[in-house]
Amino acid sequence: MMRTLDLNCDMGEAFGAWHMGEDAALLDHVTSANIACGFHAGDPGTIHRTVKMAIEKGVAVGAHPSLPDLQGFGRRAIAIAPAEAYDMVLYQIGAVAAFARSLGGRLSHVKAHGALYNMAARDGSLARAIAKAVKDFDPRLVLFGLAGSELVRAGHEAGLRVANEVFADRTYQPDGSLTPRSQQNSVIHDVESAIAQVKRMVGEGKVRSVQGTDVEVVADTLCIHGDEPTAVEFARRIRRALADSSIRVAPIGH
Amino acid sequence: MMRTLDLNCDMGEAFGAWHMGEDAALLDHVTSANIACGFHAGDPGTIHRTVKMAIEKGVAVGAHPSLPDLQGFGRRAIAIAPAEAYDMVLYQIGAVAAFARSLGGRLSHVKAHGALYNMAARDGSLARAIAKAVKDFDPRLVLFGLAGSELVRAGHEAGLRVANEVFADRTYQPDGSLTPRSQQNSVIHDVESAIAQVKRMVGEGKVRSVQGTDVEVVADTLCIHGDEPTAVEFARRIRRALADSSIRVAPIGH
Amino acid sequence: MMRTLDLNCDMGEAFGAWHMGEDAALLDHVTSANIACGFHAGDPGTIHRTVKMAIEKGVAVGAHPSLPDLQGFGRRAIAIAPAEAYDMVLYQIGAVAAFARSLGGRLSHVKAHGALYNMAARDGSLARAIAKAVKDFDPRLVLFGLAGSELVRAGHEAGLRVANEVFADRTYQPDGSLTPRSQQNSVIHDVESAIAQVKRMVGEGKVRSVQGTDVEVVADTLCIHGDEPTAVEFARRIRRALADSSIRVAPIGH
Amino acid sequence: MMRTLDLNCDMGEAFGAWHMGEDAALLDHVTSANIACGFHAGDPGTIHRTVKMAIEKGVAVGAHPSLPDLQGFGRRAIAIAPAEAYDMVLYQIGAVAAFARSLGGRLSHVKAHGALYNMAARDGSLARAIAKAVKDFDPRLVLFGLAGSELVRAGHEAGLRVANEVFADRTYQPDGSLTPRSQQNSVIHDVESAIAQVKRMVGEGKVRSVQGTDVEVVADTLCIHGDEPTAVEFARRIRRALADSSIRVAPIGH
Repeated sequence: MMRTLDLNCDMGEAFGAWHMGEDAALLDHVTSANIACGFHAGDPGTIHRTVKMAIEKGVAVGAHPSLPDLQGFGRRAIAIAPAEAYDMVLYQIGAVAAFARSLGGRLSHVKAHGALYNMAARDGSLARAIAKAVKDFDPRLVLFGLAGSELVRAGHEAGLRVANEVFADRTYQPDGSLTPRSQQNSVIHDVESAIAQVKRMVGEGKVRSVQGTDVEVVADTLCIHGDEPTAVEFARRIRRALADSSIRVAPIGH
Repeated sequence: MMRTLDLNCDMGEAFGAWHMGEDAALLDHVTSANIACGFHAGDPGTIHRTVKMAIEKGVAVGAHPSLPDLQGFGRRAIAIAPAEAYDMVLYQIGAVAAFARSLGGRLSHVKAHGALYNMAARDGSLARAIAKAVKDFDPRLVLFGLAGSELVRAGHEAGLRVANEVFADRTYQPDGSLTPRSQQNSVIHDVESAIAQVKRMVGEGKVRSVQGTDVEVVADTLCIHGDEPTAVEFARRIRRALADSSIRVAPIGH
Repeated sequence: MMRTLDLNCDMGEAFGAWHMGEDAALLDHVTSANIACGFHAGDPGTIHRTVKMAIEKGVAVGAHPSLPDLQGFGRRAIAIAPAEAYDMVLYQIGAVAAFARSLGGRLSHVKAHGALYNMAARDGSLARAIAKAVKDFDPRLVLFGLAGSELVRAGHEAGLRVANEVFADRTYQPDGSLTPRSQQNSVIHDVESAIAQVKRMVGEGKVRSVQGTDVEVVADTLCIHGDEPTAVEFARRIRRALADSSIRVAPIGH
Repeated sequence: MMRTLDLNCDMGEAFGAWHMGEDAALLDHVTSANIACGFHAGDPGTIHRTVKMAIEKGVAVGAHPSLPDLQGFGRRAIAIAPAEAYDMVLYQIGAVAAFARSLGGRLSHVKAHGALYNMAARDGSLARAIAKAVKDFDPRLVLFGLAGSELVRAGHEAGLRVANEVFADRTYQPDGSLTPRSQQNSVIHDVESAIAQVKRMVGEGKVRSVQGTDVEVVADTLCIHGDEPTAVEFARRIRRALADSSIRVAPIGH
């Protein structure tokens, strides 16, 4: 049986006069675009342009909702109630979906951004609120979440299609969580090692933890960090490596 | 033939801890609710509550998009390009429509707010951009605009259903425009005169200008100013007066 | 020796078209005004009006800096680094102080708002960052903080004058902290009991905890909650009660 | 007599995660830094870093207040009343001045940004409101404005020191105003021509208008556009050219 992997990337993270990321170039390599919705980045004009580019290049259009924190780029945890998470996610999904709809496309998936993503990975009540917002808007949407996290669990419980997300350049703990960035060995700097980790996660469903034990992991979609200068080059190399391993790259949300 | 008039009111104009307007009481009297979308008022939680109340009371749910100006409550003109108007209106419509959809309802109309409404009444290119955003999102939506304005014209040209909006408590100029608020005789303070003006606009299609001439006017929907303390009482009286004149009050957008 | 108590109240918490609190009436009763700086409430026009009123009524003008969260009214914890706290507090102090200066007055104190106040009460590094911002701006400023908290300690360490803040309507724990609002007995609803608690805190330096033990507490300033409908009436009663107990009410920051 | 020219540049126009301009490199060449205050760009952390760099490099620290429009980078005109202009300028001056003060420096000048600058160049009542805000904060501050504009006039009337600002790369009209960017010949693309224009403005007090007539112009400070990729190179060349012409480059605000 041929394995399949989705490649997703955060996009549309410009804001007004400020630029971020090489969206046009990255869209040639990824299969799912997570488009900033205005709360951590992405004004209406940027959303319009990014959704249009993604549709033109045949890349799946997703919403990338965030905590309301332009100044902190959505990376700072904010203590919100589940009902607040539900409302802010629904608002942002609706806003981005309007552009997909007006351009003759449709929204295919939702991936929470930054601190909201991390909070929902651990907090079941936040995760359920987000899953419910996604389902109430459109039950055909695919919910992206950290592989094995509370958000993935909440998506399954809500009856949604779910995409387990894995990382090429981050190390894992024995429980399947990512090694916190505050620890020294959290990032994999060697590209070959990063690629090897991805191939094993997809091919064998396993990843070696920093403690040396093997952990089971479901790898449906791989995160490409678009804000890094090497993003385009990495995307090109991982695609070639996956092709060599007979792993098909295709969007999960279509 | 029985005449029909829609009664619309701006709603959901609270923001976070700040209150505005007696939405729950007004929803017992109006037929169309224009719900703030977050740019001049209305956070996601407020939108959720307001859309829910409107649906429960059988009031048509509309989006009330604005220029991005929380501090100025959307009342300050901002020099935007038509493309910016298109994008910000589409974004806001999508956000509010998401709540209608998640609650099993649907969006029925769009009324621009404050300075955006006034700018689009006079500026054809802004008006066309707004009409296009409305149509691209959903061609069944009704576009509200000042009776006889550029926005109404743009709606017709786009093939949209249009609602000509009239005002009970504002005086008119011979060309059908409202007397600017900067002029002394711009507001009708006497409730009986205000009601009489509405009845004549609906019944005869005419309004007496401040210069004494009669002006033709199409009256599809009447604006109830929800932020005035007398709003609920006025809504009650105008409904009774309309009933006495055999004018049916019904939503235009359903 | 005659005891002295400062009465402080959060003010200027309107924003644009939205109203909050009866500032003018409260200024007749309090001795220190903590004026919102624009991050949780308070646009520049509101700051101007509020500083002007306070100066005219002889009330000490203070800055009331917050986390950047208009929608959450500064009540939601945001995970910020101490350097971020330093910068946002300094920015807000400077903004409000500019109005005091332009009106011929001067800033007398700083009280952090909402979640920032609570976070700095427990987190020494945040507390030291805030104390440093206050001192770097003007070492004559008085730093307000929860009586006995980390913020008070940081103020002392920085060589600032400090005001220990106490609450009339909140119950205390044996360690001097406030009973969390999530617990049933956190609020004192009976006005006479609230007044009695204040008199004992000022007169004896003690408060009875909910567990029945006495706790030592320093009471330099009492918080009047301006956003409650009974605020003006409570301020009037507490002043009369303090006068009867020969406790002088005077601003600490002058 | 030796002529003097100030070189000023807008700086600190990053926001959160978004970068803009090569501030560090430009600070080696200019004499006055206009630092964004948070309304069109510039969060508190960016302000802190930029003020610190300017002080360390001996560059005069100025505030660069704007209309409240992050998304439009302060470039869109907003219809504000003079009282609103006064309040928003005072707020922003105070915020930036706080960082100068905490770092042992002081604010030396104020230059309005973008649309606010252009509006105040033509509208006397806005210009007077801005001049009053500057004076009320600190009468020693230097007010920057388009050479010969209403803002310069208002500064003189208020008794402030004023800096007439000229542009190297923009053409002039016979009345001394800039040719609007909407016109084809508004920008001077040839660097030698731009430098020659500056030298003549400083040396002879004249500029050739696009219509061919000479216009008198006072040149106190030259604007270096920091957001253009060639900014550093242009700053280097203009300094060399000015040195060759025995024009001294020095801050006006010290």
